[in-house]
Amino acid sequence: MPLLVMKFGGTSVATLDRIRRAAKRVGREVANGYDVIVIVSAMSGETNKLVGFVEETGPFYDAREYDAVVSSGENVTAGLMALTLQEMEVPARSWQGWQVPLLTTDAHASARIEEIPTANLNAKFGEGMRVAVVAGFQGISPEGRITTLGRGGSDTTAVAFAAAFGAERCDIYTDVDGVYTTDPRITTKARKLDRIAFEEMLELASLGAKVLQTRSVELAMRYKVRLRVLSSFEEPSDDAGTLVCPEEEIMESNVVAGVAYSRDEAKMTLQSVEDRPGIAAAIFGPLAEAGVNVDMIVQNISDGGITDMTFSCPVGEVARAEKAMDDAKAAGDISFASLIADKDVAKVSIVGIGMRSHAGVAAKMFQTLRDEGVNIKVITTSEIKVSVLIDRKYMELAVQALHDAFELEKAA
Amino acid sequence: MPLLVMKFGGTSVATLDRIRRAAKRVGREVANGYDVIVIVSAMSGETNKLVGFVEETGPFYDAREYDAVVSSGENVTAGLMALTLQEMEVPARSWQGWQVPLLTTDAHASARIEEIPTANLNAKFGEGMRVAVVAGFQGISPEGRITTLGRGGSDTTAVAFAAAFGAERCDIYTDVDGVYTTDPRITTKARKLDRIAFEEMLELASLGAKVLQTRSVELAMRYKVRLRVLSSFEEPSDDAGTLVCPEEEIMESNVVAGVAYSRDEAKMTLQSVEDRPGIAAAIFGPLAEAGVNVDMIVQNISDGGITDMTFSCPVGEVARAEKAMDDAKAAGDISFASLIADKDVAKVSIVGIGMRSHAGVAAKMFQTLRDEGVNIKVITTSEIKVSVLIDRKYMELAVQALHDAFELEKAA
Repeated sequence: MPLLVMKFGGTSVATLDRIRRAAKRVGREVANGYDVIVIVSAMSGETNKLVGFVEETGPFYDAREYDAVVSSGENVTAGLMALTLQEMEVPARSWQGWQVPLLTTDAHASARIEEIPTANLNAKFGEGMRVAVVAGFQGISPEGRITTLGRGGSDTTAVAFAAAFGAERCDIYTDVDGVYTTDPRITTKARKLDRIAFEEMLELASLGAKVLQTRSVELAMRYKVRLRVLSSFEEPSDDAGTLVCPEEEIMESNVVAGVAYSRDEAKMTLQSVEDRPGIAAAIFGPLAEAGVNVDMIVQNISDGGITDMTFSCPVGEVARAEKAMDDAKAAGDISFASLIADKDVAKVSIVGIGMRSHAGVAAKMFQTLRDEGVNIKVITTSEIKVSVLIDRKYMELAVQALHDAFELEKAA
Repeated sequence: MPLLVMKFGGTSVATLDRIRRAAKRVGREVANGYDVIVIVSAMSGETNKLVGFVEETGPFYDAREYDAVVSSGENVTAGLMALTLQEMEVPARSWQGWQVPLLTTDAHASARIEEIPTANLNAKFGEGMRVAVVAGFQGISPEGRITTLGRGGSDTTAVAFAAAFGAERCDIYTDVDGVYTTDPRITTKARKLDRIAFEEMLELASLGAKVLQTRSVELAMRYKVRLRVLSSFEEPSDDAGTLVCPEEEIMESNVVAGVAYSRDEAKMTLQSVEDRPGIAAAIFGPLAEAGVNVDMIVQNISDGGITDMTFSCPVGEVARAEKAMDDAKAAGDISFASLIADKDVAKVSIVGIGMRSHAGVAAKMFQTLRDEGVNIKVITTSEIKVSVLIDRKYMELAVQALHDAFELEKAA
């Protein structure tokens, strides 16, 4: 029988009424002839409550016990979803991570999935089970202890199951109805995309569109799992949501798929750095060790062995970056005249696989921003994206202008 | 190293502060040189919340899913207790039922313990673990699904661990400070017992003294596990609580150990029953099938092949009993003139292993009640107990008078 994976996040299973609504969607796919693996999160608020308990026990807690406590929220939802499906006469049962088993590394609280043997679930599908309700976010370590997968773990669980069981599709039910050309709160012209390529979604996810966790998109891309993002609060329909898929499946597309932004960036400039081989490592090594997430890097042309080095990072990490640079200077590892932090910048990016075959996309972006009087502070590009750092006050204007310039309100 | 089992009920782990207090008691025993197995219940209120969720999904729920959901409360407490002990620098880890493993039958929601292999825990004790915190009330079925043990399951878990690991003692921490000669709310002369024999405790537990679950006392008696009942809200001391132990360990004891009562009883009389071989089976078979817990039974002397049959049951089961008898009469299985239900009776019992070697105990009980003008409706006796059914309005008077007559306020 063809198989679907359906994942419901915390807000989609927050109450028994919502669990019932989600179960109806599952029942609809079973009636359509699918076997279904349902991945559930904890009822919203539950995981935070459990994390709070753990943190209250002390500051340096054992991640193994953290996992044992925090994973229990998903177990509750899995059982309740199975019961609700049974009440609708859909043959269902719940599975905890260790029962599947979902085998992970022993990196507690942020474990990686190693393997999902399919024998146990397939045996039960063979005996007439139509729905396996799996507690998301959790697995079992080689030592037999419960692990959790860390941030975005339930999305990742869903994609991993879809890959292991060869599912036709992996539907991620959330509280937004799909992926948009940009944030609808910034321009009402934002349009929901019917399809988006994995590579585009990956750039959008890591650029701040909080629909899907980067990790789950990477996994979907690697195993070519077709992902659909859709809202559990809308009426079911066959073309609901956004399909994230290999680019071959997208016949026509705009050159630019979307405009992403990241509001709280900082631009850091090290002035009068001694330019010598290994200087980049001497700067960015200590920053990485200090936990500073450096994003864009620009080095000015050297003038007499002296240069300026500019990088961007989240504004919340400026203090850490300053301390790391001062320490490196004090230790004699680098020399610079001063470190200037500009905390009032934002990043705006255009993303699209069409850029690969279309010249002039970056130029059109720069021209659009110039026409609006927006000064560009830093530029970085990849094959399918162009990002610029600008003054934060122009961010919304820039997003709107780029959305208009590339006519993203129109479908291809 | 000598080993103790310590069990903390729901009120003893209701908050993180209380978990900390319980952990301190555990730490004290570790400092005394014991390895400890701690059995925990869910934080009070949690299990009821989860049961409520399950019941909301529908009236005929799958007991396997019920178990998967309801068992999660104990997992949370086990992890939090392990973390709290670690914070106090006591080497501890949590164990869920399937990790131990605690092997049970597949009678979900009321499973029986089959075996507790000791290898896993003992290996960790050998590696330096001093405390194993075990989630109570749960185990794993032969099919690998989570089971729960039903009412009193956590006490039973504790006793079973004490038996399997040859523990020196099993301490049951609860919200009362021990077993009393009678309910202190009925007479201020009620005295806490230092020791009580298993057989006595069993009679007291099943007669309504709600300190320990009958099932756990039976298990303790079978495996000679010394049980101590004590309060987690009192300062620790070596002679706290009540020790439930083999009668050989009780040097001196009163003839009567305690006076128990059960308030909500009903006395049912079948009048003019045809007295023939098999009539008792014809009456009590249907009652058992209807789920009526028949306690005392008295049959009058037969007069011309016609007799009266009297039995007692909880007052809440009277309607069921009436229906079962009417149905049996309609089916022609029994014949009787009428069924009279007296819903205003209570049961009062005296219990003590000393009765075996002392004559006249029952006579003294009857005389005491007569002197108070209390009419006895039904009497039953066993080797170590005498029970009477009386009008409910005399219940407190009867308990007080018997407590005085047998001088239970004085230690032996």
